[in-house]
Amino acid sequence: MYFDYAAATPVDKKVLTAMSPYFSDQFYNPSSAYSPARQVRADYQAAKHRIAQVIGAKPAEIIITSGATESINLALAQCHSGLDPESGVITTAIEHPAVLETARQNGARILPVDSKGRVDPENLEKYITDDIKIVSIGYANNELGVVQNLKAVAEICRQKRLERVESGVAMPLVLHTDASQAAGLLDINVARLGVDLMTLSSGKCYGPKGVGLLYVRAGVVLDPLFNGGGQEAGLRSGTENVAGVMGFATALEMAEKKRKNEVRRLEGLQRNLEKYIISDIKNAELHSISKQKLPNIINFSVEGLDAERAVFALDQRGVQVSTGSACAANKGTRSHVLTAIGLSPAAADGSLRISLGRGTTKKEIEEFKPILKEIIDHEQKLS
Amino acid sequence: MYFDYAAATPVDKKVLTAMSPYFSDQFYNPSSAYSPARQVRADYQAAKHRIAQVIGAKPAEIIITSGATESINLALAQCHSGLDPESGVITTAIEHPAVLETARQNGARILPVDSKGRVDPENLEKYITDDIKIVSIGYANNELGVVQNLKAVAEICRQKRLERVESGVAMPLVLHTDASQAAGLLDINVARLGVDLMTLSSGKCYGPKGVGLLYVRAGVVLDPLFNGGGQEAGLRSGTENVAGVMGFATALEMAEKKRKNEVRRLEGLQRNLEKYIISDIKNAELHSISKQKLPNIINFSVEGLDAERAVFALDQRGVQVSTGSACAANKGTRSHVLTAIGLSPAAADGSLRISLGRGTTKKEIEEFKPILKEIIDHEQKLS
Repeated sequence: MYFDYAAATPVDKKVLTAMSPYFSDQFYNPSSAYSPARQVRADYQAAKHRIAQVIGAKPAEIIITSGATESINLALAQCHSGLDPESGVITTAIEHPAVLETARQNGARILPVDSKGRVDPENLEKYITDDIKIVSIGYANNELGVVQNLKAVAEICRQKRLERVESGVAMPLVLHTDASQAAGLLDINVARLGVDLMTLSSGKCYGPKGVGLLYVRAGVVLDPLFNGGGQEAGLRSGTENVAGVMGFATALEMAEKKRKNEVRRLEGLQRNLEKYIISDIKNAELHSISKQKLPNIINFSVEGLDAERAVFALDQRGVQVSTGSACAANKGTRSHVLTAIGLSPAAADGSLRISLGRGTTKKEIEEFKPILKEIIDHEQKLS
Repeated sequence: MYFDYAAATPVDKKVLTAMSPYFSDQFYNPSSAYSPARQVRADYQAAKHRIAQVIGAKPAEIIITSGATESINLALAQCHSGLDPESGVITTAIEHPAVLETARQNGARILPVDSKGRVDPENLEKYITDDIKIVSIGYANNELGVVQNLKAVAEICRQKRLERVESGVAMPLVLHTDASQAAGLLDINVARLGVDLMTLSSGKCYGPKGVGLLYVRAGVVLDPLFNGGGQEAGLRSGTENVAGVMGFATALEMAEKKRKNEVRRLEGLQRNLEKYIISDIKNAELHSISKQKLPNIINFSVEGLDAERAVFALDQRGVQVSTGSACAANKGTRSHVLTAIGLSPAAADGSLRISLGRGTTKKEIEEFKPILKEIIDHEQKLS
């Protein structure tokens, strides 16, 4: 019983089928001049076209990377890096460490969130002083599942840009979003969202690990994180991970195609499980809201629970859940996300994240309920 | 008839078998806390142990990256980057663009090579002034196949380090080698070579593309190229490409196990083809030497030949060779390597690189010979 789809998703069988030819048969270097290599290059470019179509971008605006972390660093650390060393990055306290760390090294201003993890767009407006170069706000939070109103954020950025032009301020204003958790669950059309930069991760949407992308709106100037053969329009050198990109394209297309039905299905499962947690687990409190949330994440705390122990106890019963993001879990540190929404240390340490996915069924949820209750009841008695 | 193994190698079937379980079954995030994920972490760590064993390093000295380009940038741009902004990097004029570009941005001093591409260690000694932080010399050149005497280079670096200690110079001296072309063909034991940093690429030794490593000798301090969840001892954040690393480990082990026999076999094929080129192709001149070279690369020029046309003509006959590195071929620029060894523009533009590999057979070489002669004779007549 796997309930940690927010940490990792299995590669879909169709995705693997799309990748297979590019390991041992179509293995050519896409930069080589002969026809089998040119065919590989054509396939690679076609995959980028397909990705571009899913997110409503132009193919030249897609920069393939080794994953979300690299994309985020490229977005936040390499945006006009040579021009304005004193400029700042606005982000929120509930972002992934890749965003927070990179923002900290590039003049971070941390925007507070409310007790449900929501950004207040009006408050954001006050934060965007003339020395701000980048606004980076995660689309959907990986721990809480809260979804930000990116359209409102984009509209504020648009207004600020106009104001800057009128008042002769040369500093550009660029909106980045880490949408790693959103593919297949939310609308990720960059034009509709109004973002300038967007990070996606293949490994979070049933594609292979080790592949990601940064959408870079035409006109936004970035410096490469590393140099070499000049692939990806000079922005990301290195021989292309062709098999990975073929898989990523297929994964994104599938995610988008399945999205509406899958969201409806997951919402049903989520509602079902949330109701059970509230009604049958003593002192349980949900950290999510009724709207503006991902349909696959349930985060809740239980008074007096040692959530880390609960994870291990559930594991022994063949159930996989987490206390938060895998990176933090691995270090045994308290979730900075739960702290940022104002939870007490005890409440944060007593929180579990359950995340659903394509493999989750009604039957599995029903089997899971009594196990969850039993473990939590038992652990509560111990503490 | 594929004769461009220096540009890309097919993934070995055993490598693919080693990767397979980690796509859809063992897909867990290695940072997650539950037992199936801990098993994935254990497998990943075991793979790093196996890699360490092949190159004679400690597992903690292996930093997994997305490929050689990233490894090279990490080595050259992030070595004590905060400490000595005025320090320099010594490298040679025949390195891969990833080395040359990164060195250029970090104070490059270009060491000349002789007409066969060899570095003179005694000359290197004069170049290592007290402001030099890194010496980066490719182990085996991807275009010429020339192999540098790294042990002699390492000995010079060792002497210089002692001199610096004695004269109170605080600047460290670090030796990096790009050994991307060497795996499976040369001894890549870091202790025997005496290097501090070494780059390897999975995609050049029958492993998957999109994976590489940087060996970082214990005690050498690097800053990460990007920040995030703190994977790879904080030096390379991002969810681990588990399948890729399982494949890379298997590929490296296989390459090392097959090495001695494969080198002998390739040397025979290389000698055979070199003899034919010299004796049967009019005005052909080999750019390699008899010793100190890879057993799989043959680079030669033919007076009056337009090598780019020859590549296309050979392609039409089902033969894949190249004019040099794939990156340069793609841009249609003249090889900087051939220019650096003193070839005239005409000779450089008339040069072909033939590179052999595991799939190359005696029979294939014999079939290739008359086609090569026919095409070159025909092209020569045209020009």
